[in-house]
Amino acid sequence: MLFSTLGLSCFWCHNLEFKGRDIVSIEDFIQTEINHILDVAKSMEPLAKGGSELLKGKILATLFFEPSTRTRLSFESAMLKLGGNVIGFAEPDASSTRKGENLADTVRTVENYADVIALRHSLEGSAKLAAEFSKVPIINAGTGSEEHPTQALIDLYTMRKESGKIDGLKVALVGDLRYGRTVHSLAYALALYSVELYLVSPETLRMRKDVLATIKSKIPVTENANLEKIMPQIDVLYVTRIQKERFPDAAEYAKVKGAYRIDLKTIEKAKKDLIILHPLPRVDEIAPEVDNTPQARYFQQVWNGIVVRMALLSLVLGAVE
Amino acid sequence: MLFSTLGLSCFWCHNLEFKGRDIVSIEDFIQTEINHILDVAKSMEPLAKGGSELLKGKILATLFFEPSTRTRLSFESAMLKLGGNVIGFAEPDASSTRKGENLADTVRTVENYADVIALRHSLEGSAKLAAEFSKVPIINAGTGSEEHPTQALIDLYTMRKESGKIDGLKVALVGDLRYGRTVHSLAYALALYSVELYLVSPETLRMRKDVLATIKSKIPVTENANLEKIMPQIDVLYVTRIQKERFPDAAEYAKVKGAYRIDLKTIEKAKKDLIILHPLPRVDEIAPEVDNTPQARYFQQVWNGIVVRMALLSLVLGAVE
Amino acid sequence: MLFSTLGLSCFWCHNLEFKGRDIVSIEDFIQTEINHILDVAKSMEPLAKGGSELLKGKILATLFFEPSTRTRLSFESAMLKLGGNVIGFAEPDASSTRKGENLADTVRTVENYADVIALRHSLEGSAKLAAEFSKVPIINAGTGSEEHPTQALIDLYTMRKESGKIDGLKVALVGDLRYGRTVHSLAYALALYSVELYLVSPETLRMRKDVLATIKSKIPVTENANLEKIMPQIDVLYVTRIQKERFPDAAEYAKVKGAYRIDLKTIEKAKKDLIILHPLPRVDEIAPEVDNTPQARYFQQVWNGIVVRMALLSLVLGAVE
Repeated sequence: MLFSTLGLSCFWCHNLEFKGRDIVSIEDFIQTEINHILDVAKSMEPLAKGGSELLKGKILATLFFEPSTRTRLSFESAMLKLGGNVIGFAEPDASSTRKGENLADTVRTVENYADVIALRHSLEGSAKLAAEFSKVPIINAGTGSEEHPTQALIDLYTMRKESGKIDGLKVALVGDLRYGRTVHSLAYALALYSVELYLVSPETLRMRKDVLATIKSKIPVTENANLEKIMPQIDVLYVTRIQKERFPDAAEYAKVKGAYRIDLKTIEKAKKDLIILHPLPRVDEIAPEVDNTPQARYFQQVWNGIVVRMALLSLVLGAVE
Repeated sequence: MLFSTLGLSCFWCHNLEFKGRDIVSIEDFIQTEINHILDVAKSMEPLAKGGSELLKGKILATLFFEPSTRTRLSFESAMLKLGGNVIGFAEPDASSTRKGENLADTVRTVENYADVIALRHSLEGSAKLAAEFSKVPIINAGTGSEEHPTQALIDLYTMRKESGKIDGLKVALVGDLRYGRTVHSLAYALALYSVELYLVSPETLRMRKDVLATIKSKIPVTENANLEKIMPQIDVLYVTRIQKERFPDAAEYAKVKGAYRIDLKTIEKAKKDLIILHPLPRVDEIAPEVDNTPQARYFQQVWNGIVVRMALLSLVLGAVE
Repeated sequence: MLFSTLGLSCFWCHNLEFKGRDIVSIEDFIQTEINHILDVAKSMEPLAKGGSELLKGKILATLFFEPSTRTRLSFESAMLKLGGNVIGFAEPDASSTRKGENLADTVRTVENYADVIALRHSLEGSAKLAAEFSKVPIINAGTGSEEHPTQALIDLYTMRKESGKIDGLKVALVGDLRYGRTVHSLAYALALYSVELYLVSPETLRMRKDVLATIKSKIPVTENANLEKIMPQIDVLYVTRIQKERFPDAAEYAKVKGAYRIDLKTIEKAKKDLIILHPLPRVDEIAPEVDNTPQARYFQQVWNGIVVRMALLSLVLGAVE
């Protein structure tokens, strides 16, 4: 079900009505809605620890056409903690796609088996297409280099929980801003708040033009920022992996892969209450020595993935308002 | 447990006793039994929507040695909707088969972990072999080019639900009748009813001789039918995929793959109440423009997969009579 | 949580306190503890048949970086029979490892999704490493050629159940004693009891020196035993697969693969109450004709895997004392 395809401003959508809704792009949400999702996520914390029957009898299908540990297992754990169940596949080779089935048919099949679908796919636009064909809500679990809206919600939740607020934060996005789908969704989301944004990346991995145009019209953005210089001012250091698998050219990858490695020296002059986030997995972007600093919050971020996804599943299935 | 290996007519089997029984071949069933399965499937419709605890505490193992979206996820959804649980694998590489284990040993292992096993395998006879060794019921979820009995039951259920009857129908089977396991099982099943059958296929993909001999002894069969000519008379158009993966020769595949493509023009002169079925996945056999015609029922067919498999699981586990 | 890393004798561990404990190596246990696990396993027999809610709301993550039918499905079945749920992956390709994530990060991620982790990995030491980083209990489900402690517990449980005792048994370990992780764990475990051990293997597959040194200091061990000669005396014939996948050299494998094949002739002079065990999968080491002898107990051994793993899960999660 895709309301944005009507080309309307979707009054219904902005009425804090989430039942039956797709989570395709972070751009489909206004700030009030995002705040509501974060509030519901907070209310899920005790259920995530103690268990719940909120979605008893409901089935989540996880259709992962690209590999994932975190996102898939986190969706599955969230669904199970709500008393629901899970079916799905973890890679396209175990599915009918190998026999030539298109995504629209896969979706019109699986909607008969499940009450909600979490989709990861290598193609941009695939979540939107799936939503157009599906009778049950589609949750975008990462599409190509484009978007990863649930990760952006987790990032916002972590900022609010760990820094106590979102408005007023100075946030640096570091690493691969071109192919990294999480930073695209996060940039869109942050642009809904009063945030100052600093972009730090190798020249070849600068933020996508379309994303940049959107966010610059809303919040102050410093492109090509010098990490050392801004370190003493920033509140959030958001580090991303240089994604080998998105590079068309291996030589290009080799040139930039170690460009921004965060170690103890990098954060020497940081604020005491700086928080360091990373959507994970990481390879070399953050040295292990950083893991035990009070600033490191990327593993707390993982936990937050559970409660945010519990909130989204409960909302689109109408189990909470 | 395989009663048919006794070479007896199996009085027990025909006594509408399903508990502990294997579902290996559609040929093991008489019409009364099939009708009973379809009746039980109908009684599952409300449970498929509202949930149930009928198989609480029971475990289904899905052993899929060949890829599948539909069949595996549909069995799993059916089991979960009945309150049961699922273990299994979606491809042989993740199993001990890679270490050289034979199927008999795999079955004698898994019977300790599960109450019922759904098996998909590339080898003909594998479901029968598994049933010979297993202490728990084996459900054939597709074996080689041979049989796919649960799909045939879904097809019958769909005909009865959508056309209101099975006896009296004129059914055309179109496409790959040689390698397509679903049409073999379906042909056997239809031969138990008063049905007129039309076979439409490229010369190299004509119906297997052994299947043909059996069905011709029971019902009127028109081989090598002209699709255009029979279109105004038929009640059911059953289309199948030309299965690339079953062809020994790629050139042979290329020659026939587009042989019978159903589009709006093809069904121009069809009856109003014709129904078009397809076991899915489809590649090019049915044009997307057909999806929105009132005749298209292949996605309803997918839903019917849930209730038919719920019926089979409940029957062989003795949860319903 | 790894207490042994403290370098202490771990008073706490030997106090029959299992809650929160890792199952990394059989060497971490004293006999009293093993006996307790076997007692708890015995108390799980009715629950394995009738179902239970002992671990309702708990989640097991099965992280299998190497293929497995038996161990993974058996852990999953055990967890489901206790009313818990399961998430996980069956092979590394479907995980973030493909993106370069290290095991420590994977564990620190998954501990947020699950209450206990069962880990299979090709690297020796991986379970220990995982336990060092994990906040939730790690159960070693097989690491490299090193250890497979839960299999050893199953073997002991089977001996006690089928032979009525462990102390006093004469046990022959046959086959690949070099690369076979199950025999390493089993040898350590047997050395805690009053057992006589006979080692039978090709010259190139003799028992690892480190394991040998440990067990020889505790119990009588006959190396390089002649199978035919000892057959009339032994109580347990423990056969293992020559594991092709652990051999660096294919020619070396070809030389020894059929070295010790057990058939009816081999056991002609065996005791009436000999029991034949095998951790499975088998390839050619035991002829199928042996399967129906009263001595064959390897498929009973499979069932015992369920109750032993139910016991371990319940113990480390604190559901039983």
